[in-house]
Amino acid sequence: MSLILGVDVGTATTGYGVVAHERGGAVSLVECGVIRTAAGSPLATRLRAIFDGMGEVLDRHEPSVVAVEGIFYGRNARTAVILGHARGAILVAAALRGLDVVEYSPAEVKNAVVGTGRAGKEQVQYMVQQLLRLRTPPRPSDAADAVAVALCHCYSAAISTLAAARGRA
Amino acid sequence: MSLILGVDVGTATTGYGVVAHERGGAVSLVECGVIRTAAGSPLATRLRAIFDGMGEVLDRHEPSVVAVEGIFYGRNARTAVILGHARGAILVAAALRGLDVVEYSPAEVKNAVVGTGRAGKEQVQYMVQQLLRLRTPPRPSDAADAVAVALCHCYSAAISTLAAARGRA
Repeated sequence: MSLILGVDVGTATTGYGVVAHERGGAVSLVECGVIRTAAGSPLATRLRAIFDGMGEVLDRHEPSVVAVEGIFYGRNARTAVILGHARGAILVAAALRGLDVVEYSPAEVKNAVVGTGRAGKEQVQYMVQQLLRLRTPPRPSDAADAVAVALCHCYSAAISTLAAARGRA
Repeated sequence: MSLILGVDVGTATTGYGVVAHERGGAVSLVECGVIRTAAGSPLATRLRAIFDGMGEVLDRHEPSVVAVEGIFYGRNARTAVILGHARGAILVAAALRGLDVVEYSPAEVKNAVVGTGRAGKEQVQYMVQQLLRLRTPPRPSDAADAVAVALCHCYSAAISTLAAARGRA
C-alpha cells in the first residue's frame, strides 16, 4: 500500500487529499481538506501558511509521492505567477522531506478520473465520490480537486506498471 | 545602522547582496554572492537549494528587510511562472524568520541606482561599484543586480524618511 498526496494549489485556498493505493489497485480516501490563508495578509505570510500547513499534512501521513496540478499558462499571467509562488512553497515543503513531486496537467487529471480531458468540475467531483465510495463528494471543492489529482497519480502509476509488465512479457 | 538584503531571483542563479545602511545615509557592502542550482535537478530540488541557501544568508546576517525585484509580466509567461516558484521559496524563507519583504520593479531599481529607469545592465553595475566605493563591480552580475536592489531600498527608505520629516515640519 502506498499513500499519495494530491494538491490543488491556490493562494487563498490550497486543497489536499491523501489517497491510499493498494497493490491490487484499490483506492481509498485517508483524509482531505483545505489550507486557507488570510486575504489581507502579505504574500510572504500567506506562502508561509501554505508551507506550514503542507508540512503538517506531510508529517502526519508521510506519503510516498506528492502529485500537483501543472500550471495552465493560458490563464491570466499575473494569476499564473502568483500560483507559481504558492507551488514554490509546496515544492520546498516536499523537497525538505525528500519526496518525489509529480505534475499532471488539468486535462490529464480529468481524463484519468472522468475519461475525458474536457470534463466539468461537477463531473470530476461526482467521479471522485464514486471511485472512493463516498456518501457525498469531498467538500469544499478544492479538497475534491486535490483528491482527483491523487487519483490521477494512482491510475497513471497503474498504467505504467501494466505497460512495464507487458514489456517484460 | 540597518542591514538590507537584496535578492535577484533566478532558478539557475539567485544573486544576493547585503548592504549596511547607516543612519546618516551612508551605505557599504557587507557581502554578496550567488546561490547556484544544478541544471539537471528536478524543480523541487532546485527550489530547496534556493530556500536553504537563502536561509543561510538570512541567519548569517539577520537583515531587517528583504528587498526583491518584482516580476516583469511582459516576458515569457512560462519563465515568469518558474521565477514565481523561486520567489515563493525565498518569500517563505523570509517569512519563517518574521522578516518584511519589499518589492521593487526593475525600473525602480534602475532609477534609484542610475537615475533613469531605462539604464542598461552595465550602467547599473558601474553605479553599484561607485556608490559602494568598490575597486570592481561585484561579480557575477547576478550578485551586482542583487546589491542594486538592496541599494534601491536604502534610497527609497531615505526618501520616505525625508518626506515624513518634511510633512512634520
